[in-house]
Amino acid sequence: MHPYRTHTCAELRKEHVGHTVRLSGWVHRIRDHGGILFIDLRDHYGITQVLADPDSPAFAEVEKVRAEWVIRVDGVVKARDPELVNPKIPTGEVEVFIKDIEVLGPAEELPLPVFGDLEYPEETRLKYRFLDLRREKLHRNIVLRSNVIASLRRRMTEQGFMEYQTPILTASSPEGARDFLVPSRLHRGKFYALPQAPQQFKQLIMVAGFDRYFQIAPCFRDEDPRADRSPGEFYQLDVEMSFVTQEDVFQTIEPVMRGVFEEFGGGRPVTQEFPRIPYREAMLKYGSDKPDLRNPIEMQVVSEHFRGSGFQIFARLLEQEGNEVRAIPAPTGGSRAFCDRMNAWAQKQGLPGMGYIFWREEGGRPVGAGPLAKNIGPERVEALRVQLGLDAGDAAFFLAGKPAAFVDVAGRARNVIGEELGLTRKDSFEFCWIVDFPMYELDEETGQLDFSHNPFSMPQGGLEALNELPPLDVLGYQYDIVCNGVELSSGAIRNHRPEIMYRAFEIVGKDRAFVDSHFGGMINAFRYGAPPHGGIAPGIDRMVMLLADAENIREVIMFPMNQRAEDLMMGAPSEPTNEQLRELGLRIVPRED
Amino acid sequence: MHPYRTHTCAELRKEHVGHTVRLSGWVHRIRDHGGILFIDLRDHYGITQVLADPDSPAFAEVEKVRAEWVIRVDGVVKARDPELVNPKIPTGEVEVFIKDIEVLGPAEELPLPVFGDLEYPEETRLKYRFLDLRREKLHRNIVLRSNVIASLRRRMTEQGFMEYQTPILTASSPEGARDFLVPSRLHRGKFYALPQAPQQFKQLIMVAGFDRYFQIAPCFRDEDPRADRSPGEFYQLDVEMSFVTQEDVFQTIEPVMRGVFEEFGGGRPVTQEFPRIPYREAMLKYGSDKPDLRNPIEMQVVSEHFRGSGFQIFARLLEQEGNEVRAIPAPTGGSRAFCDRMNAWAQKQGLPGMGYIFWREEGGRPVGAGPLAKNIGPERVEALRVQLGLDAGDAAFFLAGKPAAFVDVAGRARNVIGEELGLTRKDSFEFCWIVDFPMYELDEETGQLDFSHNPFSMPQGGLEALNELPPLDVLGYQYDIVCNGVELSSGAIRNHRPEIMYRAFEIVGKDRAFVDSHFGGMINAFRYGAPPHGGIAPGIDRMVMLLADAENIREVIMFPMNQRAEDLMMGAPSEPTNEQLRELGLRIVPRED
Repeated sequence: MHPYRTHTCAELRKEHVGHTVRLSGWVHRIRDHGGILFIDLRDHYGITQVLADPDSPAFAEVEKVRAEWVIRVDGVVKARDPELVNPKIPTGEVEVFIKDIEVLGPAEELPLPVFGDLEYPEETRLKYRFLDLRREKLHRNIVLRSNVIASLRRRMTEQGFMEYQTPILTASSPEGARDFLVPSRLHRGKFYALPQAPQQFKQLIMVAGFDRYFQIAPCFRDEDPRADRSPGEFYQLDVEMSFVTQEDVFQTIEPVMRGVFEEFGGGRPVTQEFPRIPYREAMLKYGSDKPDLRNPIEMQVVSEHFRGSGFQIFARLLEQEGNEVRAIPAPTGGSRAFCDRMNAWAQKQGLPGMGYIFWREEGGRPVGAGPLAKNIGPERVEALRVQLGLDAGDAAFFLAGKPAAFVDVAGRARNVIGEELGLTRKDSFEFCWIVDFPMYELDEETGQLDFSHNPFSMPQGGLEALNELPPLDVLGYQYDIVCNGVELSSGAIRNHRPEIMYRAFEIVGKDRAFVDSHFGGMINAFRYGAPPHGGIAPGIDRMVMLLADAENIREVIMFPMNQRAEDLMMGAPSEPTNEQLRELGLRIVPRED
Repeated sequence: MHPYRTHTCAELRKEHVGHTVRLSGWVHRIRDHGGILFIDLRDHYGITQVLADPDSPAFAEVEKVRAEWVIRVDGVVKARDPELVNPKIPTGEVEVFIKDIEVLGPAEELPLPVFGDLEYPEETRLKYRFLDLRREKLHRNIVLRSNVIASLRRRMTEQGFMEYQTPILTASSPEGARDFLVPSRLHRGKFYALPQAPQQFKQLIMVAGFDRYFQIAPCFRDEDPRADRSPGEFYQLDVEMSFVTQEDVFQTIEPVMRGVFEEFGGGRPVTQEFPRIPYREAMLKYGSDKPDLRNPIEMQVVSEHFRGSGFQIFARLLEQEGNEVRAIPAPTGGSRAFCDRMNAWAQKQGLPGMGYIFWREEGGRPVGAGPLAKNIGPERVEALRVQLGLDAGDAAFFLAGKPAAFVDVAGRARNVIGEELGLTRKDSFEFCWIVDFPMYELDEETGQLDFSHNPFSMPQGGLEALNELPPLDVLGYQYDIVCNGVELSSGAIRNHRPEIMYRAFEIVGKDRAFVDSHFGGMINAFRYGAPPHGGIAPGIDRMVMLLADAENIREVIMFPMNQRAEDLMMGAPSEPTNEQLRELGLRIVPRED
């Protein structure tokens, strides 16, 4: 017999009744029922009930064990009485009568219980992560994460992608965030950088003639921690393809994402055809370039109904070019109480308030009510209602001014309205692509042109567009994939032509020397036969968070650091030895405060 | 039609004749045959011959292209004349008549040709790695590596293992090599370390109750570079299992290794049942704990034949306890010329020489010859011959003294003899397990006891063995996997009991405080219910080197650093900015020379 187990703790069934078996696992819970000791024995796979009565030769030993001891038991499988069957676990029809027990790993008193769902302070949970990980929910999340990654790999491989590892000790990358640096011992005074993303490498892989690359890639950013990003390191499904258009990337990634979310989403519906929404349309309809499409509300421009109307504030605003009035329809929100609540919400956001109309039935017809309706009169109110497709019992909210100034709060109002009215669907995964991002934007403060997203995207229309269009009208082959309002990744068809790259940078006032010195590795490679290529890099942690319904990224990572970027279990970061500092040729500058 | 391609450069066959197709790829080679331009168009998948004659509307454009330009061509597939079929490539029966051509990515003059097998200086190859990677052999190696890793993953998953990522920014680990350090910005004066291996984490994963872990794990060691180890980072198939014995680990890993080597070994035979060779037996038979079993020679102890014999040097040596005479049989080596050559080789290794006997046929019987044979006389010579299983035409070499002093040179002599006599098989992969490593060894210089390999292995016999056996007699549940004389990995059943761990360290003079301060993360976890567990971590780079027949590790890594740990393409390591140093609170100490 194997020294530790003949079966896992999830395997025994009725057909094993009468067999002598050996199980090993953790003591999940001990109960004493009238002198009989029941132990839920737990391993990675499941739980089996084992028990000893005072007649068992092992009883005296069984009495000694405590929660979370690791034990090995030998015993005979018996069927449980029908009324004692536990239908919640696969082994619930049987139990094992202990004949022999061996303690494989005793446990001291626990700083954190494993059994039960008690909340514990995060510092304790992280310091004793190996105990926290034994708890059901975290264990399930980590298994989910591993399965998601395996599924992503399988799906990419099935589409002809190959995984290649890119260097982790490398040079500073132009991703824009702060690098982690690694001092070189052999080259005193010089440093490696950990990759913020393998962006340049994956493009070099394309230039090197490998057609379809992916990698579950570790990425490193020395940023101040946020709830949805682990301090330090995170993983992305890094993808790059040669000889492709934007549409090819979509056709490749859509089935992967849809497939993974269908496989692990617990039956929650997943968007079948991801809509492609131009950036400007997204900003108008949803007030965001990461719209939550579970919320059915779409905003509309309704300026015409207010132009020259009796609502003086809006009418006057519309006399200035560039101003607009936009409506947020609120189906089922047609009560003064709800409208006032939203108005108060808007004031908390720093707005003077949010105009509204709500419709109630009067004489068999929907009639608009509220101060704004009075000001513009029934004809305009009715025209608005028709445009917005609303009816009695519904409402609409209005914001006016320069869209850039209110689009953000409009987007948040849409979220709140969708939530409050119960319009936003739960339990579904709604994906979309945001496309046609502008290449450039005006920095509001400096009045300077800058890249709005990634300087390395191919402008739509190529060199010609850069030379002939006003910069703010140039769109990029750049796209985001969004699920339930969470941006999973940006991506782009890359600019693989040095002359187009130089021109793109020239527009924001950076000369060739700047480009050569900052992105020399890549631009140099493009001189020697570069294929058209593009890619994307969906964040693994965010995907798993969505699938696991986790609010905090530390719930989907095996060994995360805390919010202060410390590993409390291993004691990192820690002080170096003098020997280490001497070898690296470094001295620590004392903080001045 | 797709803007770039309807087919890859490996797809077209006779059945496509007459089709209009679009291909994209690199201009591999251009030939001008009587005014007709033939281009080998290459992509990741293969090569297709495309051509243009002066009648083609694209001829003028085709004339302009040069090697390694990326082009898109449209054309009609035609069958080649039977005498022009190229059976070496899958597309060799057809060619494409170019109707239209577009340059997608021109190339400047190349610092390194892609076509052809010309050797180029490594610095050039690394600086222009994206060109070097286009060359057939390197491209094939990198694809092999990716396929090997995918196969390893599949095989591990099929056996119920799950892949979990462990932290890369972590604490100093006790692996014994030098850590790479990463200064913390948030915690001035403190440093993270990159993991030399996820050893502690994988054990913590077991303590956390995950049963079977693997990871294609990046590991980091700041060591001076060697031919078989990349400076900086390398990858291992990191494996750990709970509730297992050493034999379980073997039963798990053997089919994985055998399977991968059979899958990618190009038909070369692979050991079916990996022999388990105790460490002491390996040292005796092969003079090495990483024996190359392709070499059939096995050494033997032959002291008895020399004790009290007329060969005074050996006879006198044998009077001292601990001395031995060992024989290296050399089948087919039975000529004075060969024996003298080996003797000269031994002198080059710093030995006074190597005694030998060779057998030749005299009167239908094998008769020993050479000075040593004369000294000990025909009876002893014949007894030696019988023990060693040799015959006329064979030879044997002899070394005497303390085995520890000559075992190493004996091992090398075995290699040379096997090679020189053509006994060592080529084109096979011969695996074995080396088992029963001693836990402790005596440091020759200090006379102190020290761990001979890994201090974290479980001693065979547990606490009892530590308490009762002489330390040098304690064996560990520790093992190596070796292929063709290359150690692919060490592994062990771990010591998961703190009391046994403390005792194991006490034997080498380290107290509890030492253990707690150096390995606190792990030992602390073992106090809270640790399962018996063990694992292994075969090196990926070495496996791929064996499969690819590569001598240099840089031939099996996409973007390796050079021997001075520099990335010549990306320019790493590089000087930090003052801003970076200020944020990290570091100052560089100028070198004193």
